[in-house]
Amino acid sequence: MNPSINTFIGCDNSYNDADIVLFGAPYDGTTSNRPGARFAGSAIRRESYGLETYSPCLDCDLGDIKVFDSGELEVPFGDPVPVLDMIYGHVKAIINDDKLPVMLGGEHLVTLGAVRAMVEKHPDLNIIHFDAHTDLRDDYLGQKLSHATVIRRCHELIGDNRIYSYGIRSGTREEFEWAGEHIYLQRFNLDNIRETNAPVYLTIDLDVLDPSVFPATGTPEAGGISYNELISGIVSACGMNIVGCDLVELSPPYDHTGVSTATACKILRELLLCLKR
Amino acid sequence: MNPSINTFIGCDNSYNDADIVLFGAPYDGTTSNRPGARFAGSAIRRESYGLETYSPCLDCDLGDIKVFDSGELEVPFGDPVPVLDMIYGHVKAIINDDKLPVMLGGEHLVTLGAVRAMVEKHPDLNIIHFDAHTDLRDDYLGQKLSHATVIRRCHELIGDNRIYSYGIRSGTREEFEWAGEHIYLQRFNLDNIRETNAPVYLTIDLDVLDPSVFPATGTPEAGGISYNELISGIVSACGMNIVGCDLVELSPPYDHTGVSTATACKILRELLLCLKR
Amino acid sequence: MNPSINTFIGCDNSYNDADIVLFGAPYDGTTSNRPGARFAGSAIRRESYGLETYSPCLDCDLGDIKVFDSGELEVPFGDPVPVLDMIYGHVKAIINDDKLPVMLGGEHLVTLGAVRAMVEKHPDLNIIHFDAHTDLRDDYLGQKLSHATVIRRCHELIGDNRIYSYGIRSGTREEFEWAGEHIYLQRFNLDNIRETNAPVYLTIDLDVLDPSVFPATGTPEAGGISYNELISGIVSACGMNIVGCDLVELSPPYDHTGVSTATACKILRELLLCLKR
Amino acid sequence: MNPSINTFIGCDNSYNDADIVLFGAPYDGTTSNRPGARFAGSAIRRESYGLETYSPCLDCDLGDIKVFDSGELEVPFGDPVPVLDMIYGHVKAIINDDKLPVMLGGEHLVTLGAVRAMVEKHPDLNIIHFDAHTDLRDDYLGQKLSHATVIRRCHELIGDNRIYSYGIRSGTREEFEWAGEHIYLQRFNLDNIRETNAPVYLTIDLDVLDPSVFPATGTPEAGGISYNELISGIVSACGMNIVGCDLVELSPPYDHTGVSTATACKILRELLLCLKR
Amino acid sequence: MNPSINTFIGCDNSYNDADIVLFGAPYDGTTSNRPGARFAGSAIRRESYGLETYSPCLDCDLGDIKVFDSGELEVPFGDPVPVLDMIYGHVKAIINDDKLPVMLGGEHLVTLGAVRAMVEKHPDLNIIHFDAHTDLRDDYLGQKLSHATVIRRCHELIGDNRIYSYGIRSGTREEFEWAGEHIYLQRFNLDNIRETNAPVYLTIDLDVLDPSVFPATGTPEAGGISYNELISGIVSACGMNIVGCDLVELSPPYDHTGVSTATACKILRELLLCLKR
Amino acid sequence: MNPSINTFIGCDNSYNDADIVLFGAPYDGTTSNRPGARFAGSAIRRESYGLETYSPCLDCDLGDIKVFDSGELEVPFGDPVPVLDMIYGHVKAIINDDKLPVMLGGEHLVTLGAVRAMVEKHPDLNIIHFDAHTDLRDDYLGQKLSHATVIRRCHELIGDNRIYSYGIRSGTREEFEWAGEHIYLQRFNLDNIRETNAPVYLTIDLDVLDPSVFPATGTPEAGGISYNELISGIVSACGMNIVGCDLVELSPPYDHTGVSTATACKILRELLLCLKR
Repeated sequence: MNPSINTFIGCDNSYNDADIVLFGAPYDGTTSNRPGARFAGSAIRRESYGLETYSPCLDCDLGDIKVFDSGELEVPFGDPVPVLDMIYGHVKAIINDDKLPVMLGGEHLVTLGAVRAMVEKHPDLNIIHFDAHTDLRDDYLGQKLSHATVIRRCHELIGDNRIYSYGIRSGTREEFEWAGEHIYLQRFNLDNIRETNAPVYLTIDLDVLDPSVFPATGTPEAGGISYNELISGIVSACGMNIVGCDLVELSPPYDHTGVSTATACKILRELLLCLKR
Repeated sequence: MNPSINTFIGCDNSYNDADIVLFGAPYDGTTSNRPGARFAGSAIRRESYGLETYSPCLDCDLGDIKVFDSGELEVPFGDPVPVLDMIYGHVKAIINDDKLPVMLGGEHLVTLGAVRAMVEKHPDLNIIHFDAHTDLRDDYLGQKLSHATVIRRCHELIGDNRIYSYGIRSGTREEFEWAGEHIYLQRFNLDNIRETNAPVYLTIDLDVLDPSVFPATGTPEAGGISYNELISGIVSACGMNIVGCDLVELSPPYDHTGVSTATACKILRELLLCLKR
Repeated sequence: MNPSINTFIGCDNSYNDADIVLFGAPYDGTTSNRPGARFAGSAIRRESYGLETYSPCLDCDLGDIKVFDSGELEVPFGDPVPVLDMIYGHVKAIINDDKLPVMLGGEHLVTLGAVRAMVEKHPDLNIIHFDAHTDLRDDYLGQKLSHATVIRRCHELIGDNRIYSYGIRSGTREEFEWAGEHIYLQRFNLDNIRETNAPVYLTIDLDVLDPSVFPATGTPEAGGISYNELISGIVSACGMNIVGCDLVELSPPYDHTGVSTATACKILRELLLCLKR
Repeated sequence: MNPSINTFIGCDNSYNDADIVLFGAPYDGTTSNRPGARFAGSAIRRESYGLETYSPCLDCDLGDIKVFDSGELEVPFGDPVPVLDMIYGHVKAIINDDKLPVMLGGEHLVTLGAVRAMVEKHPDLNIIHFDAHTDLRDDYLGQKLSHATVIRRCHELIGDNRIYSYGIRSGTREEFEWAGEHIYLQRFNLDNIRETNAPVYLTIDLDVLDPSVFPATGTPEAGGISYNELISGIVSACGMNIVGCDLVELSPPYDHTGVSTATACKILRELLLCLKR
Repeated sequence: MNPSINTFIGCDNSYNDADIVLFGAPYDGTTSNRPGARFAGSAIRRESYGLETYSPCLDCDLGDIKVFDSGELEVPFGDPVPVLDMIYGHVKAIINDDKLPVMLGGEHLVTLGAVRAMVEKHPDLNIIHFDAHTDLRDDYLGQKLSHATVIRRCHELIGDNRIYSYGIRSGTREEFEWAGEHIYLQRFNLDNIRETNAPVYLTIDLDVLDPSVFPATGTPEAGGISYNELISGIVSACGMNIVGCDLVELSPPYDHTGVSTATACKILRELLLCLKR
Repeated sequence: MNPSINTFIGCDNSYNDADIVLFGAPYDGTTSNRPGARFAGSAIRRESYGLETYSPCLDCDLGDIKVFDSGELEVPFGDPVPVLDMIYGHVKAIINDDKLPVMLGGEHLVTLGAVRAMVEKHPDLNIIHFDAHTDLRDDYLGQKLSHATVIRRCHELIGDNRIYSYGIRSGTREEFEWAGEHIYLQRFNLDNIRETNAPVYLTIDLDVLDPSVFPATGTPEAGGISYNELISGIVSACGMNIVGCDLVELSPPYDHTGVSTATACKILRELLLCLKR
């Protein structure tokens, strides 16, 4: 008789054996609209048992790859500074052991903690960013650290022409103008993902999906992409040199039908399988 | 310190300065299936603060146009006759001041009050009608005034060949036969909106959208159009001489995920921006 | 093989055999807050199959009494006038056949249709009224026929000192003052129901219950009575000469847990059993 | 005054007159994920009154065909063996009278009871199967009778190359391999339904639809088909010699918006109309 | 870095050290009304982290006692026979090691598996039973094994005058008559729990609570007891020689507010603390 | 035609005329369990229109008193430090004008901002605290500023024997021990509120109510008080020299039935009326 172990389905390798380390960053303190992304990681793990380990789309099985699920970081609430430090430290440890980190948000700001660690190891880091929103404000209600500023903060770490945003359909006029000068921004879809040889951090804000497909997110934006379009985008991005990635902004308290969580589970399975193909 | 003012985002012009007047007609007394459209106007205003004022689709900002939000009419419950009179009076006042009225339902019957005022100023009024349902019954359970009869009543005011219905996917056989003789009715989609030089009243029943996109409506009908198809239809219609319009049949009590209200907000923003392009 | 027949559990007598006739009046057109009471009758019938026919509280079984369930009246929407006429006619027919009518609302205004018929047969009719609200306004937003005016309208039919309101915990100051002159009004509880020998119509607005017990109603009011207190009140009232009764203001769209509907079912069972003890 | 009769809209023919017999099999005892399909049949009947009897898509009306709705079988809970026997007996009686059975699940295992009766009358029976899942396991947690094994059990009755599965997007690697040897399995869509002259039983697991369109099902699977694609698939299949069919896996307790039930109603109407074209 | 371990809060002892073994029996296959009790155990564990380990009511802390949480049994679906066997085996193993089993349902039928093991060790076993329902039918729709028959089946194992049912407020007339001859049955409340020196199995169907307190259960019954009354009843019962116990019939899919699960967590904490006082 | 003004019902006085200033502090960044209290103020204002201005319990009307509703503070997200500063400043301004502040949370931490301003004006300030939880931790996950530490922080400002906590039913053993030395803490109820002549700040965490009465809160705790008991406690406290107060921890995203928000509205009305009696 053993105690209940709660990991993402098929991710039961030991840390030492694993190539990929999955972990959760349950912080949503700067969410300005609908909070709850803190619950995403545990909801995804729990619901993953309704999923098969085999993907008929990729013809690959989680049993074919080696993932360790290290669970959820025990982050404090409120001030994001210690949260980002904790994420930074966790990612640093994973990449120092030459493993690939896959982070489950939480809100989008958690990406900043991971990117801080990433850029130290990979000074030429590029970011591929799937999202409905630009996330390029300089501040939000006076705060520099916010889900609405996270890509701007990442830009400060890696500089011009290293960020590729896709699927964007919301932002201020000023954000779109700023984007035109500093990053590559493609509106509305994930078509024709640009190739790069640099190491890539892939950050997926799940609100890039249409709200019909994925209602349970902080700021649903009509006019998004389909599930199949997202999977195609992930397949394209994973053809490059991915050194880390995250999946953010599932908000389970708004998932009354359970469909958003089930969809996030399936996206995570496909993402994990793509990373090792 | 000022009291809370609750208007649709970016619609904070004075009445005198405004070109467009937005108002709500919170009546759903004849809704035969799922009531609650009375709450749509206030829900849309409230949720609009999760939306940007800028549309990357239209490259236009609510700050570029002049809209006054006059709030919700205080309509009585039950008998629709005094409600339609109140709407008639409100629209009459707006168009007498040469402003363009944009009405938020409520159920679809509210359109009749607006059309009564419109046709007095524009005897050659045409109606463009986006809807899942014909709304062409002569009566419904013996009542002449009903959401299910509203387009038939409008036809009595403006006559044959002046109404263009698009997206229709539900009705009785008799309604479709009647439509064939008196109006232009296009099934299932909004493709190829017909041009006219006449003044046009645009009435949008949001159930024209697929229920996956817009579940929170009185009578959801599978097989509808996407958000992007609706926006394209609005852009086409707004290329004509629009003299008034409405957005009806959001029912917030059925909007458990909040996505329908958020989608209605975005449609209203795009509609307002299209009206002034 | 027979088609599905959908009646309240244990109420499968024929009309001719029955002593009590149950029917629904699915109208909620003047509901000012949360609509949906139109769905109460069918929800109550459907959920009644989760209930036993035997009451251990009353030691009596629905099999011991004779009830015919005539289903829901097919009322129109909007204007209440034809709805009240239809209810009037149905109750008239029932009492002409010397049967006792039990009406399921709908909103509270439906009581007026029943009382109109009742007072013709019983000119000395008294009304016992369980409710959270006074319902004594003279008009509501200019309308004479409203859930908020129904007891005032009943008073016009039967006169002073014939109405006994219990459990009242909401109303305007003016309504309470008016009540002091024209009816008997007991605040907050159903203790010590006053005896009368006159024929009594019992009208139960289910919002007399505390919202913890009965959340799914149009206007929930904190500070109400418990289920057991309501049953005691019903037992007391049914010791008098009840000639008709109703149960109103369950709003199923707000019954997310199903508990309000299940509770209404049990109250209806106890009421029916009390009527024949 | 008549008691409430609760049948699917427009299906009010007598048994003797009917060509089609509709019935419900409210069993969901082996559902491994989200239970509740037992409530589907009664929810579909109830909500069908929000639907028109006329289909503008098929230009046909339920009034043009003859359907008897025999209601829900009163099946026991727990052990599936007596449930399947009861379904077998009911289908047997219907087809002995040369009528076409249309069964409403319930979970997918109910199909097995119907197929047992079918194959006795039609030894060359073929099965067309629309589903997200293979349902081809040999056992599930040691049980041979399960929603996850139902197509495997049907294969045991009718043999190789007689089952055509479409829309499949989930299963174990072993199930897909087994399918390659024994049945025709088409992934992801319903395109190009293969023709056959044999008698066909059509089983539609509604989770073949995308969860955006149909969230209220036991195991939602992202990446499914649209409503219009399902209707096209039904039209194609019904061009063949359909001798029986079913519609399974609507789970009303998860239908918070009501859209899945409304969609199931419309699919059932189109299916019934297609069967008799 | 360790994988996520998911146990009830404060129950992290090893099996060998533990005095009490907690486990889940996630079966709800015979639930006749609202299914979902299968999810109770995992929901209770998960939500327990919103609870303190210290009880100010009992002035005792989970840290003061030794509980091992062995997680959920992996039971099959459908037929209850193998499920009851699995529960029997698990309880047998626990009591053979002289530990006290605490089972989380699941539906009430799971009690039978535990009692079968219990009675082998304690031939003079008594049962204290808190419930809204008698659960004394001889069969339910022809099935002997059902949540509605479980106490009748237990009676067959232990005989007359050994079962004490409290809080009962629903059942058929026949069940109440049968009870009068074979068991001690107290209606409506838990007052004055009778003392016994025999070994006692305590089974708590959480629907003994009022639905206002505990809406998320299979068959909510108005008129139940309060949380504090239940805790008092548990304290009384635990003054006797408790040799095993269970907590059944939380149905998380109906727990929209989360309050029922939170309440079940607190009851479980108090129960565990009482067992060792 | 005027724009929509959104204030709490009956609180439409000007700032200069007002004796009481109502405002919202929509911060919930340290909520550890269920977030959403940020939405409480606007939800309360909106739903207040379902309430009468007259209280039959207190025989007093909001028209009899003078309240200005200054709306919601526009607080940033994440770090609580600037939020508490903003609250401090707002309260400071109100009390400098000799008006009484009534704050709507948000989570309980907002109380600290108000108390900081209060204690500057009233160095002998006492606090009456109604709550289910002690809120006396020294830190929570390393953070000093948290909803779980707020009363401990207040104690640092005002010292021993100045805080009176009532209704407490949850906390760690250490918190209860600490309380025994530094504050007055009464478990479980609000009976016999202790008198003081000092100026009193009254802070009401709405989770002091039983979850049956008030489910929509961050951390529901079974075993709480009734609505009537809370009102009695407020009446008692308001017999003292109240110089400020707050109402915190309504979380509207968890208020599926709307009853918690309606109850909070009524409590606020009674509180405002009590303050001026």
